[in-house]
Amino acid sequence: MTARRGAALPGGDVHRLPLRVYYEDTDAAGIVYYANYLRFAERARTELVRALGFEQERLRRDTGIVFAVRRCSADYRAPARLDDALVVETRIIRLGGASVGLDQRVRRGDEELVLLEVDIVCLTASGRPARLPRELAAAFSSFSRHFSQPSSTGMTDSHAR
Amino acid sequence: MTARRGAALPGGDVHRLPLRVYYEDTDAAGIVYYANYLRFAERARTELVRALGFEQERLRRDTGIVFAVRRCSADYRAPARLDDALVVETRIIRLGGASVGLDQRVRRGDEELVLLEVDIVCLTASGRPARLPRELAAAFSSFSRHFSQPSSTGMTDSHAR
Amino acid sequence: MTARRGAALPGGDVHRLPLRVYYEDTDAAGIVYYANYLRFAERARTELVRALGFEQERLRRDTGIVFAVRRCSADYRAPARLDDALVVETRIIRLGGASVGLDQRVRRGDEELVLLEVDIVCLTASGRPARLPRELAAAFSSFSRHFSQPSSTGMTDSHAR
Amino acid sequence: MTARRGAALPGGDVHRLPLRVYYEDTDAAGIVYYANYLRFAERARTELVRALGFEQERLRRDTGIVFAVRRCSADYRAPARLDDALVVETRIIRLGGASVGLDQRVRRGDEELVLLEVDIVCLTASGRPARLPRELAAAFSSFSRHFSQPSSTGMTDSHAR
Repeated sequence: MTARRGAALPGGDVHRLPLRVYYEDTDAAGIVYYANYLRFAERARTELVRALGFEQERLRRDTGIVFAVRRCSADYRAPARLDDALVVETRIIRLGGASVGLDQRVRRGDEELVLLEVDIVCLTASGRPARLPRELAAAFSSFSRHFSQPSSTGMTDSHAR
Repeated sequence: MTARRGAALPGGDVHRLPLRVYYEDTDAAGIVYYANYLRFAERARTELVRALGFEQERLRRDTGIVFAVRRCSADYRAPARLDDALVVETRIIRLGGASVGLDQRVRRGDEELVLLEVDIVCLTASGRPARLPRELAAAFSSFSRHFSQPSSTGMTDSHAR
Repeated sequence: MTARRGAALPGGDVHRLPLRVYYEDTDAAGIVYYANYLRFAERARTELVRALGFEQERLRRDTGIVFAVRRCSADYRAPARLDDALVVETRIIRLGGASVGLDQRVRRGDEELVLLEVDIVCLTASGRPARLPRELAAAFSSFSRHFSQPSSTGMTDSHAR
Repeated sequence: MTARRGAALPGGDVHRLPLRVYYEDTDAAGIVYYANYLRFAERARTELVRALGFEQERLRRDTGIVFAVRRCSADYRAPARLDDALVVETRIIRLGGASVGLDQRVRRGDEELVLLEVDIVCLTASGRPARLPRELAAAFSSFSRHFSQPSSTGMTDSHAR
C-alpha cells in the first residue's frame, strides 16, 4: 500500500513542552503578543523532532531538506500573561509523503489558551517539495501510532516510504 | 448608519502598508520567520486604524477598549527574503457589533506571498466583549463601502496608502 | 554602616540558565540575531529572581515596583547557531539601594560567546527611582555573598535596607 | 581617498530613520522592550547603507562579505511607548579598514530616549575579518565628512532622511 497523502491519523501520541512567559513575549496590553504563540509552537515542533532523534540543522546539512510552514491557524481562547507556566501539547494529525499536519495546544494548567493547526511541508534547498526523509517519516509514524489501534498499522506503515 | 452585525461586506476598500524586510525578520533558513508576518499584519491594522483617525493607545485611555485577535489563519505561498520591499494589503471583510474580520495579504510586487484572515474582537479592560466605539465602527463601515459602490471610485485613491 | 550605592561586590555566586537556539532566534546570516542575546539575558535575570523566591509580576502587584534596564553593553565574541545548547551565567556584581549591576555570559560549552554587563534600576509605577524591596535586596545580597569573604558581611548587610 | 584605520572622525553627518512603535515592540510594562531598540538601530544602519547605494544582501552575494555587530552599548534614558513616533539618528564616528563605529540615538521629538554605540565588523562568509569593500568604505567616509567641513553645509540636507 502506498502513502496516502494527508490521510488523517486516528489518534496519536502527544509531546509536551513546558515553557515560561517572559517580558519579551508580552505586549503593552499585558498579555502574550499573538504572534508569539507561533514561536512557542515552533519550539515545540523542534523539540518533538529532537525527541524523536533528529535535529533540523543536521538534517539540512545531511540531506539538504528543510521544513516550512505551509498553513497555520490559531484560535485564541484566553490570554497568557507574564510569568505564566505554559505547556505546548503537540500531536501529529496527518502524515503525507512530503507534509505533516499538527495539532498544537498552548495550555495553562487545565485551560486551553490557544489552539493551533499547522501544516508543515518538506522542501529542498531550492524550495521545491521533497519527500520526508524515510527515517523521520518512520519516527513520526511511530510517534503517532502510540495511541492508535493496531488495525491502523498497515496504514501508518505506508507513510514511512 | 453604523455597524451591521457580522454581515459580510460585499467588497471593500484596501489599505496598503509598505514595509521592508530586515535581518530581525528573517531566520536561519534565509527567509522571513513565519510568525513575523503576523507582526507585519498587526502593523498594517494599526496603520489602517490610524489612517481612519484613531490611535489604539488613545482609544484605550479614553474608552477602556482594547482589541484582541480572536482567530487568525495564514496561508504561506512563497517566502519573503532579506531586503525585500513588501506591501501589506488590508481589507475589512466583516463588521460586527463587537468584532471585525480582515483579509490581509503580504505582497512583493504582483506576487502574493502570505494570505491572512484575522478576526479581531473588542474587549473591555477586564477582557469582556465590548461594542466597537460608535465612531470607529462608522469609520470601518465607511472605509469598507468605498469599493462596493461604483460611484465611490474617485475616493479610493485617498485611502490607498 | 549605610548602603554604599553601587559598591562592587567582591565575587559572587553564579546562576545558570540553559537554553536552546530556535529558528526564531536566528537571522538570515545563519546566526543568532544580536538583539536576541538580550532576550536570553532577561530570561536569565527573571529566573535568578524566581530562584530567589520572587516573581516580577507579583512584585509589581504587591509593591508597585518594576525593574528597568538602565544600561547594557554586549561584547559579541562568537556567534551562536541554530540548535546550539547555550547556558546564560548571571552574577550580581554591584548592589545599590535602587539598582543592581549584573555580569551575564552566554556560553556554549567552554566557549564564551557573548559577555553582557547590565545595570538594572528599580522604579515606581510612575517611573521614578525606588529602593529595592527589602527582602529582594537581602536575597540578592545573600546570593552574591556565597563566593565572597566573611569580612564582607557588614557591607552586604547594609544593602538590605 | 578611503578609510583611515580606526581614526575617530571629527563630527559627521546624520542619517534619520523615522519609525513607529507597535504592539510587537512593547512589553507588559507598557514600554518598548529593551532589546527592541537594537532592532530599531539595525533597521537604521541598514537604511543608511541603502541610502548610500548598497544593499547588504547584494553585497553578500557579490562579495561574500557580511557585517556583524562586535560590540554594542545602550544607555536607556527614558522609555518609548505604544504609538510613539520615533526617529533613529545614526552617525559614523569611527571608520577602520574592517570596522565601523556608530553613534545611534533613538529620539522622540527633542527627547533622547536611548543612546547606542555600536561597533560593526566586516566578515567573510567563514567568519574571518575582511576589509570593507572599497566603494562602501568610500561612501561611509564621504557620508561622515559632511558636517566636519563648514563648507559642506548645503549638502547635509540631502542626507537627512
